Amino acid sequence: MLMTFLICMVPAFPIAQDLPMLGAQVFIEPGQTEQQTEGLFKTLAEHGMNICRIRMFESYMIDEKGDWDFSLFDRAFQMAEKYDVKVMGTFFPATSKTDIGGWKFPKNDEQLNSFATYIQKTVQHFKTYKSLYAWVLINEPGGGLYDTAFSRSKRAIWDNENPEITQVENGYPILADLRDQAFERYMTSWMLNWIAQEVRKYDKDIHLHVNNHAIFSNAQAYDFPYWQTFLNSLGGSAHASWHFGLFERKAYAMAMAANAEIIRSGSGELPWLMTELQGGSNIYSGYNPMCPTPEEITQWLWLTVGAEGKGAIFWSLNPRASGIEAGGWALLDFQHQPTDRLLAVANVSKSIEKHKKIIAKAFKQDPKINLIYFKESFWTETIQTRNGVAATDGRNVGFKEILGYYKALLESGINANIAAYEEFDFSRDNYEGHTIVLANQVALPKASVSKLENFVTKGGKLIVSGLTGLFDENVHNVMLTGFPFQALFGGNISEIKYIDKVFPFPVNNTKQPLSGVLFKGIIAKKEGVTTLVNEDDVILGVRNQYGLGQVVWIPSLIGLGAWENSITPLADWLVTECKPDENNLFLFENPTEDVLMQTLQSPNGGLTTICINKSGKKQILPLRTSSKKNWKGTVLFANKTGGVEGTVLNIDNEETLVVHWE
Amino acid sequence: MLMTFLICMVPAFPIAQDLPMLGAQVFIEPGQTEQQTEGLFKTLAEHGMNICRIRMFESYMIDEKGDWDFSLFDRAFQMAEKYDVKVMGTFFPATSKTDIGGWKFPKNDEQLNSFATYIQKTVQHFKTYKSLYAWVLINEPGGGLYDTAFSRSKRAIWDNENPEITQVENGYPILADLRDQAFERYMTSWMLNWIAQEVRKYDKDIHLHVNNHAIFSNAQAYDFPYWQTFLNSLGGSAHASWHFGLFERKAYAMAMAANAEIIRSGSGELPWLMTELQGGSNIYSGYNPMCPTPEEITQWLWLTVGAEGKGAIFWSLNPRASGIEAGGWALLDFQHQPTDRLLAVANVSKSIEKHKKIIAKAFKQDPKINLIYFKESFWTETIQTRNGVAATDGRNVGFKEILGYYKALLESGINANIAAYEEFDFSRDNYEGHTIVLANQVALPKASVSKLENFVTKGGKLIVSGLTGLFDENVHNVMLTGFPFQALFGGNISEIKYIDKVFPFPVNNTKQPLSGVLFKGIIAKKEGVTTLVNEDDVILGVRNQYGLGQVVWIPSLIGLGAWENSITPLADWLVTECKPDENNLFLFENPTEDVLMQTLQSPNGGLTTICINKSGKKQILPLRTSSKKNWKGTVLFANKTGGVEGTVLNIDNEETLVVHWE
Amino acid sequence: MLMTFLICMVPAFPIAQDLPMLGAQVFIEPGQTEQQTEGLFKTLAEHGMNICRIRMFESYMIDEKGDWDFSLFDRAFQMAEKYDVKVMGTFFPATSKTDIGGWKFPKNDEQLNSFATYIQKTVQHFKTYKSLYAWVLINEPGGGLYDTAFSRSKRAIWDNENPEITQVENGYPILADLRDQAFERYMTSWMLNWIAQEVRKYDKDIHLHVNNHAIFSNAQAYDFPYWQTFLNSLGGSAHASWHFGLFERKAYAMAMAANAEIIRSGSGELPWLMTELQGGSNIYSGYNPMCPTPEEITQWLWLTVGAEGKGAIFWSLNPRASGIEAGGWALLDFQHQPTDRLLAVANVSKSIEKHKKIIAKAFKQDPKINLIYFKESFWTETIQTRNGVAATDGRNVGFKEILGYYKALLESGINANIAAYEEFDFSRDNYEGHTIVLANQVALPKASVSKLENFVTKGGKLIVSGLTGLFDENVHNVMLTGFPFQALFGGNISEIKYIDKVFPFPVNNTKQPLSGVLFKGIIAKKEGVTTLVNEDDVILGVRNQYGLGQVVWIPSLIGLGAWENSITPLADWLVTECKPDENNLFLFENPTEDVLMQTLQSPNGGLTTICINKSGKKQILPLRTSSKKNWKGTVLFANKTGGVEGTVLNIDNEETLVVHWE
Repeated sequence: MLMTFLICMVPAFPIAQDLPMLGAQVFIEPGQTEQQTEGLFKTLAEHGMNICRIRMFESYMIDEKGDWDFSLFDRAFQMAEKYDVKVMGTFFPATSKTDIGGWKFPKNDEQLNSFATYIQKTVQHFKTYKSLYAWVLINEPGGGLYDTAFSRSKRAIWDNENPEITQVENGYPILADLRDQAFERYMTSWMLNWIAQEVRKYDKDIHLHVNNHAIFSNAQAYDFPYWQTFLNSLGGSAHASWHFGLFERKAYAMAMAANAEIIRSGSGELPWLMTELQGGSNIYSGYNPMCPTPEEITQWLWLTVGAEGKGAIFWSLNPRASGIEAGGWALLDFQHQPTDRLLAVANVSKSIEKHKKIIAKAFKQDPKINLIYFKESFWTETIQTRNGVAATDGRNVGFKEILGYYKALLESGINANIAAYEEFDFSRDNYEGHTIVLANQVALPKASVSKLENFVTKGGKLIVSGLTGLFDENVHNVMLTGFPFQALFGGNISEIKYIDKVFPFPVNNTKQPLSGVLFKGIIAKKEGVTTLVNEDDVILGVRNQYGLGQVVWIPSLIGLGAWENSITPLADWLVTECKPDENNLFLFENPTEDVLMQTLQSPNGGLTTICINKSGKKQILPLRTSSKKNWKGTVLFANKTGGVEGTVLNIDNEETLVVHWE
Repeated sequence: MLMTFLICMVPAFPIAQDLPMLGAQVFIEPGQTEQQTEGLFKTLAEHGMNICRIRMFESYMIDEKGDWDFSLFDRAFQMAEKYDVKVMGTFFPATSKTDIGGWKFPKNDEQLNSFATYIQKTVQHFKTYKSLYAWVLINEPGGGLYDTAFSRSKRAIWDNENPEITQVENGYPILADLRDQAFERYMTSWMLNWIAQEVRKYDKDIHLHVNNHAIFSNAQAYDFPYWQTFLNSLGGSAHASWHFGLFERKAYAMAMAANAEIIRSGSGELPWLMTELQGGSNIYSGYNPMCPTPEEITQWLWLTVGAEGKGAIFWSLNPRASGIEAGGWALLDFQHQPTDRLLAVANVSKSIEKHKKIIAKAFKQDPKINLIYFKESFWTETIQTRNGVAATDGRNVGFKEILGYYKALLESGINANIAAYEEFDFSRDNYEGHTIVLANQVALPKASVSKLENFVTKGGKLIVSGLTGLFDENVHNVMLTGFPFQALFGGNISEIKYIDKVFPFPVNNTKQPLSGVLFKGIIAKKEGVTTLVNEDDVILGVRNQYGLGQVVWIPSLIGLGAWENSITPLADWLVTECKPDENNLFLFENPTEDVLMQTLQSPNGGLTTICINKSGKKQILPLRTSSKKNWKGTVLFANKTGGVEGTVLNIDNEETLVVHWE
Repeated sequence: MLMTFLICMVPAFPIAQDLPMLGAQVFIEPGQTEQQTEGLFKTLAEHGMNICRIRMFESYMIDEKGDWDFSLFDRAFQMAEKYDVKVMGTFFPATSKTDIGGWKFPKNDEQLNSFATYIQKTVQHFKTYKSLYAWVLINEPGGGLYDTAFSRSKRAIWDNENPEITQVENGYPILADLRDQAFERYMTSWMLNWIAQEVRKYDKDIHLHVNNHAIFSNAQAYDFPYWQTFLNSLGGSAHASWHFGLFERKAYAMAMAANAEIIRSGSGELPWLMTELQGGSNIYSGYNPMCPTPEEITQWLWLTVGAEGKGAIFWSLNPRASGIEAGGWALLDFQHQPTDRLLAVANVSKSIEKHKKIIAKAFKQDPKINLIYFKESFWTETIQTRNGVAATDGRNVGFKEILGYYKALLESGINANIAAYEEFDFSRDNYEGHTIVLANQVALPKASVSKLENFVTKGGKLIVSGLTGLFDENVHNVMLTGFPFQALFGGNISEIKYIDKVFPFPVNNTKQPLSGVLFKGIIAKKEGVTTLVNEDDVILGVRNQYGLGQVVWIPSLIGLGAWENSITPLADWLVTECKPDENNLFLFENPTEDVLMQTLQSPNGGLTTICINKSGKKQILPLRTSSKKNWKGTVLFANKTGGVEGTVLNIDNEETLVVHWE
């Protein structure tokens, strides 16, 4: 596919400070008094929050005569200056009054031009404020590409540049394609770049940011590496009640960590922030209503910090007064007084400030385990199941298999990387000690073969599960017509059996069997390849030495099986396979369901562990590390009675315990 | 909103007699023989049924040449005269053959004009029959306002008379509105009034009636006080299988009582009848199929009588022969022989006739407890949840919170009033001993503030629960921007927490804790206000003395919590709060789940209690009353082995026991 | 309804051989190499499979210049000849690339004409191949009649020939009709006949076949007696995962047997084949994904043989490479190696070949029990429930009541006939020993009265259950207006009570009570008729002597009740009523849930029993027969440890045991 983007030179803006900034959306709307507005900024400042977002409603900037009138927002920017709060302004061009998220694409050229005018007016007007920190290009891109004059005209151009092909190289017909999905991804990027270029016409220096959303549904629509060319930082909306519907509430902390990893990977060398976190009850909006507890707020903040997040902004500080979200989502109550949730934010902020020497420069200790996802895989699952077959049939697994691995590792104390295929660095000379996991990536583009082969040849370990590699990027079943991964994986699939219950999956080197579910892939292995799992003559898993590296291939859904049954056997097995202790990480001696740990590293060699206990009871957690160093732990943060003795953590239910080790 | 109705003078028609009339729909259709038609009326007469309805199909009044031919219906009216049965004729203008309910609005002016002709022809023709008792203006108004030439033209006029406003007084924008709902309500009234005026052109004296339906879904669309200006009696369809889907079957008796109360309140000074009750199995139509038992038939009739109903008419006497409802719904079997259900009707009829001196003039003893609902509240819930969020999330509570209170009271022996805000008399000088309950009335119009303040000032007690008062009539969250009920309620909400399980709710003055669910509202109380419920520092309920009265405010869903957990603690608490024994009512000594009681009062001071046992087993039920009178009870009706000894009732499962006390 | 079909003379093609042919779909698509194609046919031959199907994609027969190019398929036909495999070619005119089933009707005349050209080209080209065995007219007719120029023009003609009537004979209006359904059935036949006539223009002799599908949903759309006039054999698709959704997996064997019976009946004097059986996992397509076990494959094949099937063809031999079905459904694995499923086919093939003398001429021993279904009944249920009322309400019972009987009988060892009303031979002189069951046939056309009376008069037994006869073919409730079955059934329904739980149903002559569910029909019986079931005065079942025969009428859902509760009491009762041992059948001494048996008869008088055990455990099964002959059994086939001793079978779980008795 040919993409003709204008690549602009963006100066390497530094993030304002290296310490994570905490903040919230200050909701500005007509009717608010000056005193109220001031109170909001004062409250931020008093609770250790030094950044905010403001939605820049075009509707509230046009006065009754149709003239531009920025006064409502001027007041807010002035107050921000007064209380030393940085502002990220979110572009929000005029839309219908009931539209709570804003449109993602204009419906025609007229609306596009009107947006350009709005950008010009807004950027030119507010660039003089010292409190202006960044523009957020649009709220939550992803989706929203409807059949309009605008989209049809863009599609015609795109179709011309990306002509349809009707057969694959070996002559087989292409009977399904991913063109609609590819076009939507292209347009999502096109739109963001267009906005960025419009801003740059009037302000060369301002920081540009954007918040993706619903990452477990939308990741495949985001071309983060390209976005890096016009952004200064990446962000995301991670609202438990809107976006974590795949999970039970106690797994929301794991989901937040995973969401952070996906954005961290997408940000590349840029800094990233969690642009939206749920601040309070969602009364009428959102799929799975909840009121976050102070403990959850605390967890979400530390998990962001633990993934190198340089900020976390709640939606919202103050509740809106009208419409479907009126009265909800906020850190302040109806009298603009602090809730226990705001106090939790202040508490974390204080700890960050206090330990700024440790935290400011800390970086994620690379676990060298990479869960890689392919846009083509998610797209293929989407189109293969668009006849309405339910996800519970296992036919649209999406991120769930990947997150089985992620959860197993996080509960071992390992915060695995989660990266899009395009984001992983395949250019190194040596991959010894590095692992890539391809968990049910049902469609792998042909171009990935040599990259993955190179990775293993140079010492990498590749773990492959589920229906990975069944299709290429043309929804063509390559296993039938010449499997390009035959040499690398050590064979081919002979067939895929649909199994209607969870089945035990005895891997040779584990204490307890893993669990498989739904698909059982049988391997026709090449000679010389080691059998890892078998049922009599039927081979269900193999280990293939390849170059300096190794591939472990288990074409069944052992991640999903872990969700259905128990995570622990998978955790044990992964630790055995990946040998993460060689990377000096702290690990749990015994993985415990729903107890998580991330590790940050300080430039001076100290480590900081962030441990969260969602298990429903107090836990005593011995740690292990292969390092011979005699680590001594100091508690940086604990919001219950948690502490550390030697290398044993004790932690209350729902507690977040941050320990620094030297 | 400006409503420009023509107010016509309607003579105060007396109801034919003060004794409740029992009857059924006689279904007249081509093919029926004269002998069959006569048999139907004879059967009515022989079973104590002196009123019927006939659906006046326009389709069956036009002969093959297109001329009017009333003979099919003439025969029926003649038979009605012969057997002394009164006829309520239901207008049923021509519609498609598969339309089982009839249209509610014409699709264009042509159809409206055709309806006018039909009314003229029908009214002029049948006005000479002595058996003609009333016209039912249209079958089951409510809903049915589609996007047609007719509705668009009416909407244009209405929009002009009711211009949209874009902000509330304090300057906040209006982001959601209730205009579609208000227009539908307006049109429902417009249409009924139009029909009434058409009839009055040709018959100044005939009784006019209409039956609303699905009251728990549609109440907010009915402007009963306005309807009183052109009707002579109000009615309703209360079909368990169509309309009581909120409830399990054993709660249908409670639902029938509540339905009756809503209509009774709506009828004002006019008499009311239950126009449609399910007579037999619904084989293919209706949501929750059932065959009423004779016991249920008996319960429904006495519950109607107990709510001052002046009649009850079953749908239907005889089954239809064709279409989706063929063979169902009837009191007669396929041979037009009585079923056990018809015999149950006859049995109640005989008892009413026998005790006519007691029953004819009896009126409901006013419990002085009023469950008030606001159309704006139901509308607001509708629009706030129109993105498809399920009612089970607690976001579209509708009548369910109100009916938690109603059930608790009815199981205490108190038949609370249920009234639309517009129906309650706010003009009295003294409200001592009166209670208003506002149960999750999420939107209260600003105009209600002074009325409610006046009610409490003059001695009334106001009980407020759930999210009552969160919004005004513009879906504006007034709690955020100046809560107009602050003085009255004794504070404001500080925030609303969404809780995902049932939680205990310990009110100070109850034996057992109540239960809350879904929303937990926290109060920022004013000084001097008494805390009623708290969790440490968090205040969940207050009691506020105001003028001569008092407000009890518990902004959690304690009605819904009672449904989820147990009704009894709520019942106990309400009896303690409302002191209903001061109104001389008989009460149950101990409320029992699913045992109900209504009380009627005779002009001579005697009382009649109607007790129904849905508890699944025989019950011994001591009564209490604060009256010093030495009451002596006589059984008027019992359909099992029930009886009375002193002030103790004994009653079989599913029995209806009617006792007169002097 | 007037049908003006052209009846063509079709020569009586013999089936190629009398022995059942086993085979599979060979999927031919561009990209496949010659070597691969050859390998597929070689594999068939090596595994005892002598027939195949090929989908003749028009899209793959037109070269880049738009000229016809048959080479891809020529190669396949040549390979078929080389390996002595017969080919059934399926017409598959050009369609969209994602269409996996093909269109059923053209959208306009242009597409019809294009289809005609395709037929001409294809038939003329391939008629020279000896390997060509038959043309399959179209894939899976049934459904697919959309609102198009084509359908509208055909409907106008049909409407003209079948004018709507507005009232039934006795003057009652018709308020619902079955015209849409009747038109769709007409068009399904029209289309097939049209294709057949097109073929006959170019090939007078070739065998013509068609495979219906989803028989439990579509049977009413198929006019099999008419199809017999232009077909040479009948077939069907019976895919467990697409078509057996009414059942749990363990009942799929019963469903396959029933499906076979329906097709067998529809084929009349023609041979029939099971044209499509699921060969492997359905990964992304199909409602209820599964991978058939070798045991299931074996069961399905023998069940087909046991119903006189002259062939069974799997979908498919090799998996497709592209689109939604890529990689699924196949008997071969991705390397085109045999799976355990293919070996199971080969195993059955070998047994058939080995015992060809016994199997070739064997015919089904007529159990003389006929489960008759009426298209009008299924249509009526469809339109009566089209407001979305769920089938679980019992309102759209379809085949489920019939199959309650079928399962009860099959688990008694009796393979009852299942026939459309139009297929049953009502012309005999004597029906002694014959039974007809009308299980919830809610609509019986008036013309059936005399036929059913004649059947009973001449000695037949009629068992009637559920709401049978409630309506006529005009959805008119005849029980209300003159029940035409009054004399035959021995009364009329007095009413139908909807019951919301399973209720015990004590028939006089059974050990255990049967179970009823949902509808309880009460009988107003005629004098002299015997009561069979009653609750006090309420009569729920009668036995009526009529002529030389007898009617047993139980207007409740005792078939559905057996599904809900237990099949065994119904099995016991049916054996008592139908006396099947008089027909010399082998019966199970004691019916066992989920253990099935069919019996075939050889011309020499020998019997062959096919027994399948789905009960979850090994079973010892004594047989009984009323014949005085001293039967001696020999095992023809057993795929586990099953065997026979005297007249006692022993059979493993999931085993198929075929025993020949002399």
